[in-house]
Amino acid sequence: MTFLDLACKRYSCRKFVDKKVEQDKIEKILEAGRVAPTAVNFQSQRIFVLQSKESLEKLKTVTQYHFNAPLAFLVCYDNKVSWKNPFNNTDEGIVDASIVTVHMMLQTADLGLGSTWVGYFDLKVAQKTYNLADNIIPVAILTVGYPDAGASNMHANRYELSKTVEYL
Amino acid sequence: MTFLDLACKRYSCRKFVDKKVEQDKIEKILEAGRVAPTAVNFQSQRIFVLQSKESLEKLKTVTQYHFNAPLAFLVCYDNKVSWKNPFNNTDEGIVDASIVTVHMMLQTADLGLGSTWVGYFDLKVAQKTYNLADNIIPVAILTVGYPDAGASNMHANRYELSKTVEYL
Repeated sequence: MTFLDLACKRYSCRKFVDKKVEQDKIEKILEAGRVAPTAVNFQSQRIFVLQSKESLEKLKTVTQYHFNAPLAFLVCYDNKVSWKNPFNNTDEGIVDASIVTVHMMLQTADLGLGSTWVGYFDLKVAQKTYNLADNIIPVAILTVGYPDAGASNMHANRYELSKTVEYL
Repeated sequence: MTFLDLACKRYSCRKFVDKKVEQDKIEKILEAGRVAPTAVNFQSQRIFVLQSKESLEKLKTVTQYHFNAPLAFLVCYDNKVSWKNPFNNTDEGIVDASIVTVHMMLQTADLGLGSTWVGYFDLKVAQKTYNLADNIIPVAILTVGYPDAGASNMHANRYELSKTVEYL
């Protein structure tokens, strides 16, 4: 399968069967995140694997978009570790966490698993719910599981390239 | 090739041969970015293809890390289009642009091309240099080309998972 095939195969899966994701698959997803590039290779990502019944129950208080997934990753960055752009004083940790999450998301697709990237949550609520330190900044929740046959696997429509691309 | 093989094959290529990247490959890279997911599917990414002699010369005034690449993508987001997280008042456009850039970066690797993600630049200088509107926010420069035989293709070391991952 080419990369483009994989990228097109991936979709936001919002309905999962009631089946645990095996540990070896969880580790493969984490490994795909581990090898991702980060600014200055500082590897500021901090990943929390939400797998226990208690952690998954708590997730329902963090976001309404939990889809009863049997597994979720809360991807954060450590702002004491991340690279700061000296020109703009921006914290590149959000970019690090995003890159890592994309790798993990694509790895789930390559394993035949479904996932949805959830951004609709209050990072302060997530911090409090999982007792994270103030310097651990949540960026994304990746819900993961085996797709239910009833899940819509339509790849959302995208604009033509001419709408978003310009040659200079 | 599995996704993990591709992710491990990719490295930051900082030396390119003096050869243009073919238009069909440029379009494939752009297509991989086009199909990437974005918050609420708002597709806030705005991509500038730096390919002309003039644009590439200008790039040298934007960042010292241009590597004399024969091609670069300046990936931005439009903050009039991007989704704002209502809880934290954060602009998710930076996440959109990051997701799109990862897709494009991985596509370059799948094509046998080299790339480096450059974050070391002043976004205001980039805006001014390429006459971008104030609402077009640069996030990443992806330099692309055919790898020079002398490029170091070492995948940078990464921490063990135990350093960045915790099971909850």
